[in-house]
Parts: sequence; structure tokens; C-alpha cells
Amino acid sequence: MRILITNDDGVTSNGILTLAKRLSRNHEVAIVAPESERSAVGHAITIHFPIWVKELSICDYAKVYSTTGTPADCVKLGIDELFKAPDLVISGVNRGPNLGTDIIYSGTVSGAMEGAMSGYPAIAVSSADYANPNYDSAAEFTARFIERFDFSTLPPFTSLNINVPALSYEKIKGWKFTKQSKRRWKDFFEPRKDPFGRTYYWMMGDVIEDDDDPDVDYKAVKSGYVSITPITVFLTNEKYLDELRSNLKPQDFLFPLS
Amino acid sequence: MRILITNDDGVTSNGILTLAKRLSRNHEVAIVAPESERSAVGHAITIHFPIWVKELSICDYAKVYSTTGTPADCVKLGIDELFKAPDLVISGVNRGPNLGTDIIYSGTVSGAMEGAMSGYPAIAVSSADYANPNYDSAAEFTARFIERFDFSTLPPFTSLNINVPALSYEKIKGWKFTKQSKRRWKDFFEPRKDPFGRTYYWMMGDVIEDDDDPDVDYKAVKSGYVSITPITVFLTNEKYLDELRSNLKPQDFLFPLS
Repeated sequence: MRILITNDDGVTSNGILTLAKRLSRNHEVAIVAPESERSAVGHAITIHFPIWVKELSICDYAKVYSTTGTPADCVKLGIDELFKAPDLVISGVNRGPNLGTDIIYSGTVSGAMEGAMSGYPAIAVSSADYANPNYDSAAEFTARFIERFDFSTLPPFTSLNINVPALSYEKIKGWKFTKQSKRRWKDFFEPRKDPFGRTYYWMMGDVIEDDDDPDVDYKAVKSGYVSITPITVFLTNEKYLDELRSNLKPQDFLFPLS
Repeated sequence: MRILITNDDGVTSNGILTLAKRLSRNHEVAIVAPESERSAVGHAITIHFPIWVKELSICDYAKVYSTTGTPADCVKLGIDELFKAPDLVISGVNRGPNLGTDIIYSGTVSGAMEGAMSGYPAIAVSSADYANPNYDSAAEFTARFIERFDFSTLPPFTSLNINVPALSYEKIKGWKFTKQSKRRWKDFFEPRKDPFGRTYYWMMGDVIEDDDDPDVDYKAVKSGYVSITPITVFLTNEKYLDELRSNLKPQDFLFPLS
């Protein structure tokens, strides 16, 4: 396969290079990734400024381009200009988990969503421990997974969010298809004064893991399984939409005016 | 109500000030917004750098704070530190539409999603014409809407994405509950050389509007109606998840290893 890889930890991060090297054994690989870390950029794109691109000679197993853009920019550039029509887009391996509402903030996941929106099979891969990631096992799982999974079953605008436990490969118990959990962060801010007397804040947070569903993403990872969640870019809450449509009628409020 | 307002066009943009002024007639309003434009930042948050906050005296109808953060940061800061527990979070009025896959890229929509994730009723409001926005009509609609809509019906983690046609208020035909469409952008890049010989790219795009569903967001707006789409932060493609679970079993591939 011709595989386009991006990430949000930057083009020289161990996660992306480990993955590219492993996949290059059986595939043609190109890396298009941010020149520096762009974590938690969400699905940002660069529309009011241009994007600089540099070809790097940092390895012999992949073409490598660094850009001043975000992961979503990199996928667009890879598909449209630098590598053209890939067979597969992979974003990762990310340092740390992308579970529950992390997905909403994640530059890594946005890289996969961008691939799906552009019409290509796409996956995001994360090693689920920020302090002690295991890129080798995540790369190994990814390499085996993509050769066995039938990407033609992926519906339009849908990608896979994969979280691999940060264990050595032989300690991983297996894999599960999961639902995105409501795992989320309770934020708080630590206010400080800068040397010029101005107030600034550091964002901190505690994770909340209280989902009742036994088959959600973080529970699979905690029990030693790879979590594979199919995710879409369509956010409509359809059940609530049906309720709204049946309960509220145009005459109920607002229009006609006066 | 006590209403927290943010946006992604910046704290001094006409969209946010028009909305705050209109709402201040009947409500207590605080603005916490980026100091400059942060469009298309997606759901970015600021985790590796601190966020500076300044209180501004630019109007007499609202408390105003500018921050160096993103819209999602601003909502977190507003809720946790600057304004505390609002009755409602509003992100907007955005300059230009947030329809179809725009939602994924939109800093404005991310402001509302952040409010919903934090457990507060939240809406995003956009005036659906970038070149000729009509903030007065969007603010007028919002003011009337929030006084009539029963926010207690909103499910957890769900917010409303509202797009108001950029028409004068009396020309708006009404409102509709809609589904997020598959309206999307076909990107292309214009390569250039900078004065130092380095390659850079401008991202351009053409919009694709080919959704078959008659009840989607952009069709409501085009026919002169306000589009109101309930959106969730849970991205699982549940139908496909069910298919995957019934078609693929652990023994089918990958584990046990080797």
C-alpha cells in the first residue's frame, strides 16, 4: 500500500518514525507532519496564512516533509500535493491516549478525520500512556491490523480511532471494537503573575472515568486490550433531533415576527 | 440569565459585541474571548503554555475579558475562573456559516461544545454569509430564541449549532431543526516561492453541496430559514460499530500473536 502518515507530536517524534520504519517493510510510506509539536490543536486548519513545506533527509525508509501547518493541513497537503492519492492515511503513533472526549481536542484524531473527509481510509493510532509510551507495540499492532482489516467496509466520512495499551506486544491481550466513552477532564486553572505584573493561568485537569457502559474505549485499554472505535464527522444528535421535531412546531415560538 | 459569550473572531469583533449588547437588555452578560481572530482553530486548547487574561473597558453593557487562548480555553476560563457557573454559554455571532463539515473546523462551534462538555447549556450562533454578515438579525434571533427554548431538554454533552441567514430580521422565513449535512470543501493548494526561495502554499477550496437529505443545515439557510442542529461530542459511528462487532471476531485476526 501507499501510506501517508502524519501526527501532532512533530515530524521528528519517535512515535511517527517508529511507525514509518515498521510499515516501510511492506509498504511505500511518506511522512507529512508538523515541524514541531501541535498537540491539542483539535481540528485546526491554516486558512489566513500560508504553509511552508520542507523536504527532510532524516531517514532512508520514507519520504519526509515537515510543514508549518497542523495535522489536518498536513493530510490535505499530502493528499493534494506532496504524495497524492494514498491507499491509507495513518495519524500517529501519538504519545498518550486519545480516549473519551480527548478525541475532540486531539490533533492526532483530526488527522484521521481529515483523511476520511477527503475520501480515504484513515486511522488514528495512540500509545495509551503519556509518561511511558510503547511505540514499538503500537507500530507492530498497526502493521498487522492494516494488512488484515478490510478497509472497503468503512462507511464514508468514518475513520478508526485506535488506542494501544503501552505494553510490550506479547503482553497485549487482544483487541476490541469499542464506543467512545464519556471519559473527560475536570479542568481547573492555576493563576500566576508574570514578571510584569500581568495575570496568566496554567490549565490543569483531573480525569473523570465514570462511564456505565462496559464496552467503551478506556475500559478496553485498562484491561490490556487494543481499543478500536469507529468515529464519524457527523455530530448530529439524531435521537434528540427527532424529539425536537416532534415536540416543537414552527408556530410554537418566534416566527411569525412582531 | 447569566450568559457567558465567546467567539473565534476575537473580542472586539462586531459579531460578539452586537450579540452582547442585545442580550444585555434582559440578561447579565460576560464576554471572554480571544484577543485576536482564531478562526478555524477547531477544538484547540492551550496545554503547554499559559494563557494571559486582560480585563477590557470597551463597553458598558458587559464585563469583557480578552485572552491569549482559543475559544475552548475561553469557555473553560469563563466557567472556572472569570464568570463562574453561567446559565447559558453562547459562542458567536460568527462571521460566516458553520454548516456541514465546517463544524469540525470551527472555533465557534468548539466554544459551544466546550460549554456542553463542562455541563452547561450551550449554543453556537453564526451569520451565514462571510462577505456580508448580518449580526443584528442573528443577535435578534438569539435573544428571542433563548427566552423561549427549554434548555432543560438538552441531553448531556449536546449543544445547538445555529446558523442565521444573513438577511434583515423581517425577511427571515422561520426556523427549522436540521441535520448536519455532508456539505464539505474540495481543497487545493497554490504553491509559491517566498523571497528566500522557500516553497509555501496557500490553501484554497470549493464548496461541495450534494446532500440528498432535504432537511439538512445548508438547505434551510439557503431557503431563508434559521438552521438549528443539535450536535453531540460523541463521534462513534454506532451502526458501523454494530456491523464490525457482528462480522469480526477476536479469532479472525491478529491475536493470539505470531
